[in-house]
Amino acid sequence: MTKVFVNIGLSLDGYMAPEGMTLENWEKPEYKNWAAKWGALMGWILNQQYFRENLKLGPGGETGPVNDMLRSTTERIGANIMGKRMFDAGERAWPEEAPFHTPVYVLTHENREPWVRPGRTTFYFVNDGPESALEQARESADRRDIRIAGGATAIQQYLNLGVIDELEIALAPVLFGGGRRLFENLREPAPRFRIDKVLDSPVATHLRYVRD
Amino acid sequence: MTKVFVNIGLSLDGYMAPEGMTLENWEKPEYKNWAAKWGALMGWILNQQYFRENLKLGPGGETGPVNDMLRSTTERIGANIMGKRMFDAGERAWPEEAPFHTPVYVLTHENREPWVRPGRTTFYFVNDGPESALEQARESADRRDIRIAGGATAIQQYLNLGVIDELEIALAPVLFGGGRRLFENLREPAPRFRIDKVLDSPVATHLRYVRD
Repeated sequence: MTKVFVNIGLSLDGYMAPEGMTLENWEKPEYKNWAAKWGALMGWILNQQYFRENLKLGPGGETGPVNDMLRSTTERIGANIMGKRMFDAGERAWPEEAPFHTPVYVLTHENREPWVRPGRTTFYFVNDGPESALEQARESADRRDIRIAGGATAIQQYLNLGVIDELEIALAPVLFGGGRRLFENLREPAPRFRIDKVLDSPVATHLRYVRD
Repeated sequence: MTKVFVNIGLSLDGYMAPEGMTLENWEKPEYKNWAAKWGALMGWILNQQYFRENLKLGPGGETGPVNDMLRSTTERIGANIMGKRMFDAGERAWPEEAPFHTPVYVLTHENREPWVRPGRTTFYFVNDGPESALEQARESADRRDIRIAGGATAIQQYLNLGVIDELEIALAPVLFGGGRRLFENLREPAPRFRIDKVLDSPVATHLRYVRD
């Protein structure tokens, strides 16, 4: 059965993105030191063989349990959902072959025709809310799983809808001190999770929770 | 050499204590459901043999790596430091033999004589700031380590002083949705840590970071 899951990097102090990492500062990586912080958050992934292969960064890279996890996570995704802010940043940052290779449903108020990219990524712009986006994602996922890709606001919306089955967090040992918090604006009662699996690595702790 | 360390329980969404867990609501455990949340946070410790022994809760309890960790953490403490709010709550909640068995330095504006408890716990009330409390703790710790016991504000003060050598977090799979956040009010540049050790258990993930 299709699972709805989150798989993200998180700073030790609970941020998905550092302060200053906004569209206006995209070309100013030194602004509030955002690029260095982002690098510390995502450092664990950059040298994984599967990540390098997927982004066409060239051969080589680490293989092992983290790489295996990365591969199986990516391969189980039948559709992605993301917020407008993440899309806007990505539109500037992704290579032409955007790294999704699935339908991607973007939560937005903007009316826009589907945007087809090489490599099987098509962005669909959904104007009628997160539940509708989830329904459309289910239809296109072909029994594979649906990833709520981010950002924080989109994940919060789906946590509050109670539809997140699995929460996968790569917890990096960096303190941002500010930015976009993952866990905010949660409604009571909050969803309940239990620990499913912990994969320890020297540069990040991979925590997997499933709905209780 | 004496290390300064933090060892606390943390909810998955980054809170040390749930909303509503204040002195005024101490006798109203159902207020905002605080007691159930606190129980979910601390559940991992309650059945550990060493914890039961230390609080005189009776024989029995779990033994194993988590219990060993609990014992070695407790035994290495030569002095504790805590904030006024934690002390005030504890004054009502601790048994007569308060569970510290060391000097405890309380950061407060209140003038008060040292308060001697049975079982080698003496509370000293420090009025001249966190650095002074740390100095006094060092003098009394007899080369053992100093634990910043909490709450959140006290830990933030010592993080901002850059004196925390080790950060030990028992991350429980519960979402509080509100309360006292551990990581807030951090100054730039934030202190840097690296992962030292992860101890996985079914009910909490024990993360240990050391200063980088």
